[in-house]
Amino acid sequence: MPTYTKKDFPVANVRRFLEPGPIVLVSSAHKGETNIMTMGWHMIMEFTPSLIGCCISAANHSFAMVRGSRQCVINVPTVDLAAKVVKIGNSSGRDIDKFAEFGLTPASGTHVRAPLIDECYANFECQLVDSSWIKKYNVFVFEVVKAHVATAPKYPKTIHYRGDGEFMASGENTSRYRKLFKPQML
Amino acid sequence: MPTYTKKDFPVANVRRFLEPGPIVLVSSAHKGETNIMTMGWHMIMEFTPSLIGCCISAANHSFAMVRGSRQCVINVPTVDLAAKVVKIGNSSGRDIDKFAEFGLTPASGTHVRAPLIDECYANFECQLVDSSWIKKYNVFVFEVVKAHVATAPKYPKTIHYRGDGEFMASGENTSRYRKLFKPQML
Repeated sequence: MPTYTKKDFPVANVRRFLEPGPIVLVSSAHKGETNIMTMGWHMIMEFTPSLIGCCISAANHSFAMVRGSRQCVINVPTVDLAAKVVKIGNSSGRDIDKFAEFGLTPASGTHVRAPLIDECYANFECQLVDSSWIKKYNVFVFEVVKAHVATAPKYPKTIHYRGDGEFMASGENTSRYRKLFKPQML
Repeated sequence: MPTYTKKDFPVANVRRFLEPGPIVLVSSAHKGETNIMTMGWHMIMEFTPSLIGCCISAANHSFAMVRGSRQCVINVPTVDLAAKVVKIGNSSGRDIDKFAEFGLTPASGTHVRAPLIDECYANFECQLVDSSWIKKYNVFVFEVVKAHVATAPKYPKTIHYRGDGEFMASGENTSRYRKLFKPQML
């Protein structure tokens, strides 16, 4: 199991870890219960405020918990957690306590009551700021109100879902195209 | 430059190529003009209808073209196009014809007038189906009405943006966790 030392990270820059498209774990707390779900359908919507749009199917046990508490933590797992990530996505909080079942450590956040998953590379504390598309599309808009990111490595090896039970791991990183950017695009 | 032979692909399954989070190229046509922009802020919203949510900043020349024509094509480029993808993102259709400037081939779609980019691995013809969050968030909701995907390779080597001029290429693919899935989750 990975152990990461984390530090505060600017919320306006969480795109660094979410825009590449990893599978994330959404943790929640509501009415004395905690839960974790896997999520692949998410996007950055704005830098400041730091907005994330995502789809949480109403079929998920987490749906009512996140909607009811209006909070969650978006956690970024790395490849060493892949089997757990799959098992989390193939079980329900209706039946089991996922933190206990999968040996994950809930940690306290500073802005939300939902637990951070300590073994993840990054933890983004989120507040629900727009619920108007939940009924229409299962779309939640969260504001990241606090971000915790591992001090190393610089680039996490993340897990990306291709559908049909197939995954991709993040590959080679490069800055070789940085010189092609206009300063205002960086 | 890559050349791909493409075939029709089920629109309900475009998540296979978008959920891993690649940078995409959005091509559009409006009032006799065509354009291309790069986009990293997108998510799958539904299988059927095949919905994609994305953010197109109002600062982009493509913004008015896509909103005005209510159509676009979402194209998935591979790493061999990385330099062009960066240049497309750092120039404006106000100043140049991007197809001509970057030597890309516009191809005709079957359902929309926006041009497909022939050199891309996949082309998803899109119709704008919800414009109600454009003003609020620059969020467009598209329905994929026709999908064209390369017959090979099975897994494209895609480009993922980390921000700050840094990119990640898609890495190792695996089906080793497929046995952990419940049948209804596949």
